[in-house]
Amino acid sequence: MTHTNTNTDQAELLVKTVIHNWNLQNQRLDSLLEQLSDEDLARETAPGRNTGNWLLGHLTAVNDGMLPLLGLRAKLYPWLQLIFIDNSDKSGLEFPSTADLRKFRKEVNAALTEYFNAMQVQDWTDRHQAVTEEDFQKEPHRNKIGMLINRTAHLSYHIGQLIYLIK
Amino acid sequence: MTHTNTNTDQAELLVKTVIHNWNLQNQRLDSLLEQLSDEDLARETAPGRNTGNWLLGHLTAVNDGMLPLLGLRAKLYPWLQLIFIDNSDKSGLEFPSTADLRKFRKEVNAALTEYFNAMQVQDWTDRHQAVTEEDFQKEPHRNKIGMLINRTAHLSYHIGQLIYLIK
Repeated sequence: MTHTNTNTDQAELLVKTVIHNWNLQNQRLDSLLEQLSDEDLARETAPGRNTGNWLLGHLTAVNDGMLPLLGLRAKLYPWLQLIFIDNSDKSGLEFPSTADLRKFRKEVNAALTEYFNAMQVQDWTDRHQAVTEEDFQKEPHRNKIGMLINRTAHLSYHIGQLIYLIK
Repeated sequence: MTHTNTNTDQAELLVKTVIHNWNLQNQRLDSLLEQLSDEDLARETAPGRNTGNWLLGHLTAVNDGMLPLLGLRAKLYPWLQLIFIDNSDKSGLEFPSTADLRKFRKEVNAALTEYFNAMQVQDWTDRHQAVTEEDFQKEPHRNKIGMLINRTAHLSYHIGQLIYLIK
């Protein structure tokens, strides 16, 4: 049996496929975080490299930043940016507890998921807030779905490091 | 100025956005590989973890496998599978030289790029060869573009580890 999609179907399917992969990588991190104790997360992923806690905070801060960048709402935890994006693991700044970091991640991801479920194809192919209208005309791939694809890659990149906390 | 896309445009734009990100991650790895000497690649990415050489071979073998999975052609280097997919870094199997591994990667990626440039939206939303027609009806996100998104995430995952070879 062959099934011919209309173009609308195709665009919808493409968007769903991207979101599916975003969810998949997040589930992968959820499952990794369940396997890792708070003590594990306090360790460096490799000698002299970022700790699990910093990476957890970093990924949460980056996801939180997607809320305004995608034009959805203000950040839930704007103060994470200073510790986990503007500064490195070895900044000496005080981190929230690992329990809080785990909680923040869940809340930010729940907010994103709620918005994603309501977004239409046309929303996803619109420009995001980090690109000007002028640049967007020249580089139409700098749209919201492009940001989600990029953030999926960023997430996987750091999962590749967090997995080193598994003994 | 606002620009309203037709649905065909949207599907095309979505496919281009995914391929753009695939290219971006590959360029990122290319640039990392230029920074790393053959001696660097012989080292473990973290104590007891995969070496740079194994990861380079692994990523090349996985990309090579995409050629048949996407229905494009047979693998260029089918024998890489045994060393870099079916077995781990510490298998004791002899690896090709780092110079050869670098060359294989370039050739596999050049082949993929040539095919990607010729593929249409409809090709990308078709099922890939690792899913049956029956399963595909139930899970239409298991299409070729889904595989490319998945492989982009896989690539980023290992770039996150290879970056630890930078001193």
